[in-house]
Amino acid sequence: MEREVIGGGYAKGIARKEEIIEAATAYFGRVGFHKATMIQIAADCGISRAGLLHHFGSKEELLAAVLETRERVDYARFRAHIEMSPPGLGVLRSFVAGALESMTTPGLVGLYVVLSAEATDSEHPAHDYFAARYERVRSGVTMALEQAKEAGSLRDDVNIDVLAAELPALMDGLQVQWLLAPHKIDMAAVMRGRLQQILTVPL
Amino acid sequence: MEREVIGGGYAKGIARKEEIIEAATAYFGRVGFHKATMIQIAADCGISRAGLLHHFGSKEELLAAVLETRERVDYARFRAHIEMSPPGLGVLRSFVAGALESMTTPGLVGLYVVLSAEATDSEHPAHDYFAARYERVRSGVTMALEQAKEAGSLRDDVNIDVLAAELPALMDGLQVQWLLAPHKIDMAAVMRGRLQQILTVPL
Repeated sequence: MEREVIGGGYAKGIARKEEIIEAATAYFGRVGFHKATMIQIAADCGISRAGLLHHFGSKEELLAAVLETRERVDYARFRAHIEMSPPGLGVLRSFVAGALESMTTPGLVGLYVVLSAEATDSEHPAHDYFAARYERVRSGVTMALEQAKEAGSLRDDVNIDVLAAELPALMDGLQVQWLLAPHKIDMAAVMRGRLQQILTVPL
Repeated sequence: MEREVIGGGYAKGIARKEEIIEAATAYFGRVGFHKATMIQIAADCGISRAGLLHHFGSKEELLAAVLETRERVDYARFRAHIEMSPPGLGVLRSFVAGALESMTTPGLVGLYVVLSAEATDSEHPAHDYFAARYERVRSGVTMALEQAKEAGSLRDDVNIDVLAAELPALMDGLQVQWLLAPHKIDMAAVMRGRLQQILTVPL
């Protein structure tokens, strides 16, 4: 019996942690990291500050958990597209899929927009995370475009190094305009249009 | 004599206001609006909090002054390019000139990146400012591209409505990557490359 209770407590602990991460994701997305308080996150979850600190020892630790969770979700989508797609096209398709999904989750888009902006300050706790993330994204796009080139799907006159920075930059910039004017900006259509221009095959 | 003193006091007041705006620009650029405190801005200017409040009654008022000042500077650069350039190309050239100038002023770039991100929250004091600003930017790009089209400088296969969102988005997204990795991202080269692709004439 005791084991079941412990098991139940453990499962409850995980569920509670997931709840906290979900609430913190929405909250960081609204106000960023700096303005966020552990008191408010605890209140959003209906628990005490001490209860919150039992699961996450600091705001920095909670932010890291939020970013890790999002990274896992993004990576799963990304892998699925790569496996289903011709060489190189999976990464490009996941840009469009990501944009489509973003258009249903403004809180998450806000999270990345605000945190990545704040994190340009070298003192921000997520500075190294975002610097490494963009490195990874640029490398991933470069590899994908090289594969597409080898498969003959990439136009000859495009510059892969430039596109490795350009495509993620376009996605990021569209998010700001979309959050400010959701009915006027179609992020997925703009991304799809730009990606189609660099290809010799349908995306 | 009294008049001179008053005159001197008035000029001093303006100079002091400009000093405060400059300090606040750098400071908002580092930490955003939310985390910024009037106490710290006063300290950066070497004046008391009361002295600061004499010039700017609130943090919101100071933020408005910072944005207005930047808008005037940007507009002057923009006008100069329009006057010197063939129809439509001025706006496009001012994107490249803006990127080049940005690469020498990371504090200002940080200001826009952080404030525009924070301002996607509808409660932020600069929300309406940024929503209106992007409207204006998209209209300006649309007009410029229509002029370029009429002058035969624009490729036939481009979509002006899409580019009106795409070009400012690209500029914004590059700023985040550049702030995180200044030696790896050449904002001006990426912008110039993209703009050249949509033209039938040299930019």
